[in-house]
Amino acid sequence: MVEVKISIIGAGSAVFSLSLVRDLCLTPNLEGSTISFMDINKERLNAVYSLCSRYAEEMGIKLKLEKTLDRKESLRDADFVINTALAAGHHRLREGWEVARKLGYRYGGSYHVMHDEAFWINFYQFRLFESIINDILDICPDAWYIQLANPVLAGITYLGRKYPEAKIVGLCHGFMGIYHIAEVLGLEKEHISFEIPGVNHFVWLTRFYYKGEDAYPLLDEWIEKEAPKYWEKCPPSNDLGPKPVDLYRRFGLFPIGDTCTPGGGTWPYWYHVDEETERRWKEDPAEWWRRYFKGLEAQVNKIFEVARNQSMKVTKVFPPIKSGESIVSLVESLACDIPRVFQVNILNVGSFVPGVPQDFEVEIPALVSKRGIQGIRTTGLPKPIISYILRDRVAPVEVELEAYESGDKDLLLQLIMMDPWTRSEDQARKLLEGIFALPYHEEMRKHYK
Amino acid sequence: MVEVKISIIGAGSAVFSLSLVRDLCLTPNLEGSTISFMDINKERLNAVYSLCSRYAEEMGIKLKLEKTLDRKESLRDADFVINTALAAGHHRLREGWEVARKLGYRYGGSYHVMHDEAFWINFYQFRLFESIINDILDICPDAWYIQLANPVLAGITYLGRKYPEAKIVGLCHGFMGIYHIAEVLGLEKEHISFEIPGVNHFVWLTRFYYKGEDAYPLLDEWIEKEAPKYWEKCPPSNDLGPKPVDLYRRFGLFPIGDTCTPGGGTWPYWYHVDEETERRWKEDPAEWWRRYFKGLEAQVNKIFEVARNQSMKVTKVFPPIKSGESIVSLVESLACDIPRVFQVNILNVGSFVPGVPQDFEVEIPALVSKRGIQGIRTTGLPKPIISYILRDRVAPVEVELEAYESGDKDLLLQLIMMDPWTRSEDQARKLLEGIFALPYHEEMRKHYK
Repeated sequence: MVEVKISIIGAGSAVFSLSLVRDLCLTPNLEGSTISFMDINKERLNAVYSLCSRYAEEMGIKLKLEKTLDRKESLRDADFVINTALAAGHHRLREGWEVARKLGYRYGGSYHVMHDEAFWINFYQFRLFESIINDILDICPDAWYIQLANPVLAGITYLGRKYPEAKIVGLCHGFMGIYHIAEVLGLEKEHISFEIPGVNHFVWLTRFYYKGEDAYPLLDEWIEKEAPKYWEKCPPSNDLGPKPVDLYRRFGLFPIGDTCTPGGGTWPYWYHVDEETERRWKEDPAEWWRRYFKGLEAQVNKIFEVARNQSMKVTKVFPPIKSGESIVSLVESLACDIPRVFQVNILNVGSFVPGVPQDFEVEIPALVSKRGIQGIRTTGLPKPIISYILRDRVAPVEVELEAYESGDKDLLLQLIMMDPWTRSEDQARKLLEGIFALPYHEEMRKHYK
Repeated sequence: MVEVKISIIGAGSAVFSLSLVRDLCLTPNLEGSTISFMDINKERLNAVYSLCSRYAEEMGIKLKLEKTLDRKESLRDADFVINTALAAGHHRLREGWEVARKLGYRYGGSYHVMHDEAFWINFYQFRLFESIINDILDICPDAWYIQLANPVLAGITYLGRKYPEAKIVGLCHGFMGIYHIAEVLGLEKEHISFEIPGVNHFVWLTRFYYKGEDAYPLLDEWIEKEAPKYWEKCPPSNDLGPKPVDLYRRFGLFPIGDTCTPGGGTWPYWYHVDEETERRWKEDPAEWWRRYFKGLEAQVNKIFEVARNQSMKVTKVFPPIKSGESIVSLVESLACDIPRVFQVNILNVGSFVPGVPQDFEVEIPALVSKRGIQGIRTTGLPKPIISYILRDRVAPVEVELEAYESGDKDLLLQLIMMDPWTRSEDQARKLLEGIFALPYHEEMRKHYK
């Protein structure tokens, strides 16, 4: 049993915090650990703290739960710092989208406009990431910084380069789309094995086995015989819809999870050129996002209802079943030296995915133990996929980071120009000025000259 | 249960073959598999085949055992080809040593003279390795080639570069010296974890944990309090003797297993400049080799005694306990898709050990599964150790391989010149001519001009 201190930045993310505490309650090796909930929203912080305390108590598990509005206090003696915070809320994201939409921008373009990693969101995230890392290096330099907050791709690249002395890793559950495939194919989850390398939100199934046998033929068979039936019932922009299947046909590898859904950038734009084309491919990113925000709201409402109602048994509403998320297991492997392989986001320092620059983020399997997080050399990706990574992921992120570092507004314009929906510099400039004109972007206006 | 065909080249190595069959009998996942024993020595082959058949029968395990003198026949439909063959026997090794010794060469010099990877042994090994790989690519191109035979360092480097289409891995049990350390320290083997990167026969303990806590302090304590007592009783040139402890003091990392013992090259020469110095460090490579050959002979004699005596129960003399060698588990992980981490020898294509050239062999942990053998990026080695790898391992092996590829005898002379005991070109030339003059080196005389 190893007692660690875990600081959660953005603990007001009720869905995340409750899920983490539930997983901790189911991890005997970490009993006795301290969880410091930190958020700047006092009301949500109190609600989450009280709910999670009730959870651990009902489970009869000893966890020291703390809450604070002061980040530095939360970081004191922390062994793990989990960042799940979104500095600028979802309403700002959507207001920006509205400006872009009116100028002719559509989903399926770059990461940086009609996606939840829009440049007007990322700017505040970079600032937050950087200030957290600086605090960690001051207060708890040996702590692991685990970033769940987006943008993982740009964030891990930026932080990894600038703070090589910090222990940084990004986690994203996008790769778990493989379990959705397993479910739909009727495969037992514990008997599948896979490799899904790439960059965050752009990961491809290079290897897929079921009970030791290549499982791609099973997927092929499902596509041939079952997919049309499945497509009649599945929601639009599904990760097993006609679009990912068509991408598989083109590239020879299946795109996993968020890789081509709105959650990962709706890549590529050619399935989204107009509504008729989207209908043909059973794509509807706008509807996908409506469902996404609605689902999130429902979850949050349910949690806060239980939080308000002291007489409800939390463990009854949220039964003690492991979430399947890797975060607590990863902490356990690092703290208790239980070597296991996890899907992580780190710099490509060992050419884990050959062809991606070595100082750029990749999402890959890694061996996690007391030794740290050690990337595993993957079988790599075919040339066309690598080329798209360079064109649609590396290139724009490099421009975005250069813009952020230099505060050069022209580079931000360049970034917008890289979006496939940009048809003229005038259109790009209107988007830039439209975003900058929103009243709450004072800080961004000051930064970019 | 996965039925595979394993071809063993050099199956007359009785100790190895019996150990492999015993491990297979203890691996239910591989029951039903075919083992093809191949050797050019009919008498030994028959004895080993009959003994191993009795073993499987006594255990009640279904294994299809076959024997053949024809390598191509053995390779047909093979999934795994294990090479444990020594083309030129130990007597030739020792006869060459005798020539060198008389010219002033001592143990502790380069790999290529007073070591079992002497150039007059490696030459025949390279030819053998290459002809096996060519046969594999012809007959069973999807098979894994698992090389246990020395030289692993030069062999994997040579084959990995020249045959990138082949599935090649080297295994060496040298790293298991860590279990000797655990035993001496009184640590339970199942609770230690470690990382021991380097190049073959030159691996260093970068990380060492016991029950999740740094175990180096336990080693330090043992060195301070227990080592002098241990040294009074341990045999000379011990892997926990005063020399490895002194190397630890110099480099900050403990050398593991063969790294500085005669089995791995007796590196470095400065502990071996004369008998008095060797005595001071409790080093006696000549005695070490005597014990080694004697122990090997005793094992072989024991095995052949049981082989001759049909009334003896083989499982009684060699009880069914797993050997601890990783070979059968590695085959199981590859064939049955059981992802596990093993210590392997592969090319450093992902800078698994930063600082070692990417087209050179390294010994590192790797994730092994149906996906293949995927190197793990290690924490790397300190600059001084990397420098010694470049000077005493990479440089001479490059010269040896260049000499072998070109057939240039002058390069072979260069190789001998790199041995620290070489004091003059004349001395080196006498060694070269002395070796070439041995009657059975016809083939080598033809190759090198």
